[in-house]
Order: sequence, then structure tokens, then C-alpha cells
Amino acid sequence: MRHLADFDDTICAISTAPGEGAIAIIRLSGQKAVSIAAEFIQSKKTLESLEVNHQQFARFVYQDETIDEVMVSRFQAPKSYTGEDMVEVACHGSVYIQHRILQVFVGAGARVARPGEFTQRAFMNGKMDLSQAEAVADLISSRNRMAHKVAMRQMKGEFSSKLEQLRTRLMDFTSLIELELDFSEEDVEFADRKQLFDLLAEIDKEVLSLSKSFELGNAIKNGIPVAIVGEPNVGKSTLLNRLLNEDRAIVSEIAGTTRDVIEDTMVIDGYEFRFIDTAGIRESTDEIETKGIALTLQKVSRARVVLYLFDARADETPVKEALQKIRNEAGEEVPVILVANKVDLLEHADKNYEQYFDGEDVISISALEERGIEVLIQKLVEHGTRGLENEDQLLVTNIRHVEALQHIHEGIERITEGLENQLPGDLLSFEIRQVLDHIADITGQTITPDDVLGHIFKNFCIGK
Amino acid sequence: MRHLADFDDTICAISTAPGEGAIAIIRLSGQKAVSIAAEFIQSKKTLESLEVNHQQFARFVYQDETIDEVMVSRFQAPKSYTGEDMVEVACHGSVYIQHRILQVFVGAGARVARPGEFTQRAFMNGKMDLSQAEAVADLISSRNRMAHKVAMRQMKGEFSSKLEQLRTRLMDFTSLIELELDFSEEDVEFADRKQLFDLLAEIDKEVLSLSKSFELGNAIKNGIPVAIVGEPNVGKSTLLNRLLNEDRAIVSEIAGTTRDVIEDTMVIDGYEFRFIDTAGIRESTDEIETKGIALTLQKVSRARVVLYLFDARADETPVKEALQKIRNEAGEEVPVILVANKVDLLEHADKNYEQYFDGEDVISISALEERGIEVLIQKLVEHGTRGLENEDQLLVTNIRHVEALQHIHEGIERITEGLENQLPGDLLSFEIRQVLDHIADITGQTITPDDVLGHIFKNFCIGK
Repeated sequence: MRHLADFDDTICAISTAPGEGAIAIIRLSGQKAVSIAAEFIQSKKTLESLEVNHQQFARFVYQDETIDEVMVSRFQAPKSYTGEDMVEVACHGSVYIQHRILQVFVGAGARVARPGEFTQRAFMNGKMDLSQAEAVADLISSRNRMAHKVAMRQMKGEFSSKLEQLRTRLMDFTSLIELELDFSEEDVEFADRKQLFDLLAEIDKEVLSLSKSFELGNAIKNGIPVAIVGEPNVGKSTLLNRLLNEDRAIVSEIAGTTRDVIEDTMVIDGYEFRFIDTAGIRESTDEIETKGIALTLQKVSRARVVLYLFDARADETPVKEALQKIRNEAGEEVPVILVANKVDLLEHADKNYEQYFDGEDVISISALEERGIEVLIQKLVEHGTRGLENEDQLLVTNIRHVEALQHIHEGIERITEGLENQLPGDLLSFEIRQVLDHIADITGQTITPDDVLGHIFKNFCIGK
Repeated sequence: MRHLADFDDTICAISTAPGEGAIAIIRLSGQKAVSIAAEFIQSKKTLESLEVNHQQFARFVYQDETIDEVMVSRFQAPKSYTGEDMVEVACHGSVYIQHRILQVFVGAGARVARPGEFTQRAFMNGKMDLSQAEAVADLISSRNRMAHKVAMRQMKGEFSSKLEQLRTRLMDFTSLIELELDFSEEDVEFADRKQLFDLLAEIDKEVLSLSKSFELGNAIKNGIPVAIVGEPNVGKSTLLNRLLNEDRAIVSEIAGTTRDVIEDTMVIDGYEFRFIDTAGIRESTDEIETKGIALTLQKVSRARVVLYLFDARADETPVKEALQKIRNEAGEEVPVILVANKVDLLEHADKNYEQYFDGEDVISISALEERGIEVLIQKLVEHGTRGLENEDQLLVTNIRHVEALQHIHEGIERITEGLENQLPGDLLSFEIRQVLDHIADITGQTITPDDVLGHIFKNFCIGK
């Protein structure tokens, strides 16, 4: 347990989604959870005598009025989600009943919980680290298979434990360097500078790799950014609508499980694709017109995949010139999918657009007549998800973590420089502590002098 | 148990409100509930060996992928809500996870439940009668204190048990009359016609009282109908907005528990007030203009309370004439609250409107300046809720019940007539059975010949 805070107050909240359902759950957590709830619970057994983790049928009675017939269960500290005493009341999901029960609890001395406060208490009570707590929020908001997978993984604590390992090793060095300070008159050097140097290089490599994974992690969490570019009237809006409609057909496999349609995103094979700045794509006034080619090149630089849409009836030269501009902007790493639209309007004797690009694949579609869309989607998934399927890679999805990683990297550069310049032990120790702090920012571990002392005594029983 | 149907299939559903929350619950019910869920549950104990009604931490694993960390519990037939074997999975409330788990269950052989199907099974398995099952739906949709109270009471089964008592006594008579048929050659009369006559009168009185209670019950369930009437530009819309705003301020007592604002209704003291045809009130084009007085008199006939709004600066005669028309339309039972608006515009030497109505109370308001609104609301509650507070009265809130009650009443009239006309026993028995059927329509009890036979043998062990 962290014992960072003693919570005197008992919090309560409706934990199920807002609105009317068959069942709703109201949770209480804190020292008085059981005593507050017990006032209103009438059942065969009193709430206090109810076996923990056991669901009991009960009446929820307030001032002689039965508000509902409920199932109630209690959980005992520290074996609960928050690590505190908890009570769960499962009531009929009427909005009136939910609010009424919450109101009764508040009247009896509980406080309505702030967002995330149950998980915050779980963290404060040592049930999970900060990165895991953040993963809970990610998990709940995950909208697709991959985002869910990344969040589940972070919740398991792999990310934290990797950082914790590095931090422990670095802390050992701090301990040694601080020990040197105690023996400063004797001019000893407990901490092997070469080893420290190597460790720092190792940490930095890991940190940079994690930082870099944010781009992937972000693509998974917020959707793979896709830019649809092309001349005005080439059919970008129609194509976008087709893609989004395909998606809607796909996601509603189970009867009754329609989801909120998120504007301009679609989920295929568990991946979410996000069409960037589609407002811009839709409004042709927003586009730059240069010599017959109108492209919003900026979009390209933010995309992970580019769909380059051209009219199958267009002439070769401008189509190829535009592609060149896009490729220059996108860089080598971003794949550009070549899409010839309006093939339905193509006369037999018309241009042979498929030969424009030296044998490169061109996907022929008619957005209007819904031809070729499936093939295009396949291609989009193939290019868009490349590199995302690496099962073993840890992905950073949280901007707060990216910032902390950046601070760690900068700190390591300062320490490395300090080592090269024979920086005195106390200044070196200060810099290392900064880095330890930044790692702790991610995992939520706080470093107290006790912590450092603990390490000294644990690793070095020098009999002093 | 009714054993009306054997359910081979196992149903599943997300039982919490749709959308994202901290927790969601997915329920399974049916013979295979445990075996289906067990496939995906990994925990210290197997689901089969888990103590009933006990919540167990578990991983929900599908094809080696952990979909979520959940709490799982199982319930054993017949001691469950549906009376069948049940499993509840409480997962993180991500929409993705909810749908995923449901999908996995469906893939393993469960079927997505139809609306109300869990409660339907509870009814079919004899866990509750039909009226109680209907009350569950009412309870879940109850938006205010009184609607909640009525539904709770119906769920307790008071309504059904009252009808059941009457039905049992009536069934005794059927039994006796049908017994007479067996002894038809001997010309006996087991059933005392006078007693039957008295019983029918008693049932009819009860049935009419219940029918009549529908008006109250409906006012409670769907809101007390209030009509705001008055000349165009007298300030009806402004007043309505003021009233609705007052309500919004009242309902949002607890931080974070804002409710969906239901257009043109407000809840005060647990009662819901519904402003009828307020679209009409708002559009003055919809109003009938006759000799300077425009009133939508139709509204008045559907109201339980009428707010008659007039301009404090208006002349006495037209104001009194309009009131008379309203009172004629409303009838004696509907209270008309006299409201003088725009008192802020009244000059010192203006009309003395308070003397227009022979000492009757007039409420002076300024809808614009929000003066007098509290007093008006008090008056509205006083008049609107009169008669609704009778704690002991059973209220019918379901139109299906009203129809059944109407059929019972008609049937009783036919039987009474038949008794007076010496109707033969077999025809009399037929009519009584019709009435028994209509009572059963409400409680959901079906009458089989076994049922009637059962009664004969139970009450008359004549050694045959």
C-alpha cells in the first residue's frame, strides 16, 4: 500500500452507463460504505453479516418506503477494486430509482464520486500503478479490437514493469553514488562509471523505441489517419460516404447492437480508420488549386495511408504530376494507393489509365455505382495496418507518457554529458534523481529518500 | 411452476443501459447458461464449481485473448430471476467489450434475448404473475416518485392477489355449477344462485372502481394533464417556459445527475405534470378566435387542472365570459386556477382584476419578470394532486388491464341477466368461464379444465 492518503470520506456513484436499462449498479467505497448502505438494506441477513462477494436479494427501504428490490453485495478491504470496503447495489435500471438510491446515500453521508475516483483510490491503495489506472480509462473507451488489445496489455502492467526494471537498476546507481558522498573523504568510487554509462545507453534506447511507438499506438487508439486526395469533383465525398456506409453494414452484425456512428471513422478487422480533415476534403473551396491539380498536401503529411483518387478519363501527365507532388509530401514511408474513379463513365476507346504508373497497381472503382469498393478496402487495411500487428511490441498510447519519455531522454543526455565531464557525485545524483522522477511520473511510484535508503540497505549490508 | 413452455434455448443480453459506463452486465439465462459461459471464464474456481450467488474475479478469454477482467456469478434454477440457470458477467463498460462478450456468447450457442424476454421467462416459470411482470417494465420506465410507487406496489402483486381472490371465489361457483351438470338427471342445485348473485355484484363493484382508478393511475404514470388557456399574447408560452425552467432547476439537485429533459413535462414533489397539446398553446394560429377570446376548449376537456391565464389589464366582462366557457367545458370536477399575468405592466390606477370573480382566489404573476411563479406552482400541485395521494387505493395504470376490466364488467352483466332469466347451467358456466378468462388475462393465470377439476376435488371430496 502506498498510504499516500487516508480517505475519510465514502464515495458513491452510478457505475453503469447513464440512462435507462434493465439493471443499474450503484457503488459505495470507503470506511463507511457498509454502515451507510446497511441503513437501507432489508434482507434475510444484515449487510454486515453478509458473506463477502456474495449477492443477496434485499429490499432497499428509505423511510418505510421500498424504493426497489435489489441485489446487494459487499467487498472487504483490501480485497476489492478500490482496496477499500465496498458495497454494490444492483437495482432496476429506472433513472428515477438510480438517482433516488444515490440521493439516499448522499443524504446518509456519502459523497458523489469524481470521475475516475474509484480507480484513483485503487491506485492510491496500491491495487494498480498509474499506467495501469490510465489503461482502465483507455479500456473503457476502446472502440475497436486493437485499441482494446493495447489497453488490456497496458492494464496487465507490462509497460510499467519494463520501466520499473530500468528504474530499479538506475536507482542502484544512485544509491552507490550517494554512498560515495558519505565516504567522500576517502575518495572511493562504488559506482562503476562504465556500467552506468552502458545502462544509460540501454535505457535511452528503450525510451526512444517507446517514444517512437506512440505513432503506432496513437493510430490504434484514435484511428489510422487516412487522407483521400484528388482534384475537385473527382468523387472524394462520394467515396468517403461509400466507405463509411460499408463500415456501418459491417459493425451491425448482431441484432440490436447498433453503435454510435463516429463521424468519418470506420472499423474494419478491428482497426479504426480515421479520415483526416474530411471537412476539408468535402469543401472544395478549402483546396489549393494549382495548374488544374487541387490537392490539400498538408493532409498528406499527417496521414499513414494516402488514397490518391483520379478520374479514369483524365490525361496522363497531370495525373502523374499530382502523384509526384503527393509522394514528395508524404515521404517514402507513407504508402499511396492509386484509385481510378468513375470507371462507369469510361468509354471503350478512352484512356488506358492503368498504364500511367509503370506497372504499379491501380484500383478501378466507381464510387457512384459502388464498384471496386471491397477491393479498395482490402488494400486500405493491408497498407494501413502494416506494422501494427506486431504482437510483442509495447505501444505507448498516452501523450502524458510520451512527454515523460521525452524528459527521461533529455535527462539521460545530461547525465551522459555529466559523466564525460567528470561531474561531481552530488550533481550526478541530482540528475539521476530527475530521471527517476520522470519514470515515476509514468508508473506513479513516488521516490522518497526512504526509497533510496531502502535500496542502500537492501543491496549493501556493509555492517554500518 | 407453470411449465407452459420448455425453453431449450439459452438467451443472453446486455442488461445495463446502452453505451459506455464504468461497468456493464451481460446476462445469460437457460439450460446452457453455465456451460456456455464456462468455456470463456478463467479463474481460481471453475464456473461450475463456483458457489451460487457468489461474485468471482475472472478473466474472460476467447481464443487465447483476454477480452476483459470481469466479475462473474452464477445463479441456479429455480432460485434466479428467470427461474432458470443464470450467469452474470460484470465487465468494464466499453461498448466494444460489451458487444464482444455478447458476440462470443452468441457464437457459443446463446441467442440474443428479445426485449423483456428475461421477465417473460420469469413469468413463464412462475416467478411472478403477468401483472407483476408488467410492473417491472413500468418500474424501469418510471420517471417520478408516484409512478415509481404505483409500479412498486403492482410489482408486489397486490393488484393480482385482489383479482385472484375474486377469481378463486368465482371459480368455486363454476365448479359447483359444472358439478350440477354431472348430476343433471337428479335436478340438484349445488350453487346457491343468491350467493353467486351477491358475489357478482361485489366483483363488479371492485372492477368498476379499478377501471375508474385508471384515470388517476394514468395521470401518475404519464403525467397530470394540465391545460394552459387564455387569449393570444396573454403570455402562455412565457409562462410555460418559466414553469419548465423551474423544474429543471429542481431536478438537478445532485451534481452530475442531470436527466433528459422531457419536453413539456415537469416534476414537482414527485408528481409529473404534463402540459397537453402545448404545440397548440405555442402556435397562436392554432387557436380559435371568437369575439376577442381565443381558447382551445378541447384541451380543457382532457385536462385534470386548467390554468386560465388573462391579462391583468383586461376588462372584466370578456375575462369573466371566457372563464364561464372554460368551466362549462371542463365540468365541475376540474379545477380552474385563475392567473392574472403581466402585473408588471399594471398602472396604479388600472383595473382591479382581483375583484372580477366574486372573491375567488386570483394568482398574480409576471411570467416575464418571474414574479408569482412559486405561488402558482404551489397551487398547481395542490389542485393537480388532489386524490392521488390516497395510499391505500390500488391504481390501474395499464390500458390492457382497463380493457380486461371492461370485458369482466360486460361478462358480469351477461351472467346477472342469465341468472335472472334462469339460464341453464351449461350456458351459465360458459359465461362465468369467459369472465375467469378475462381476469386471467390480467394476472396471466391460464384456466385449463385441470384447473377447474382441481377445484372440484379440492373443495368437494364427495367420495366419487
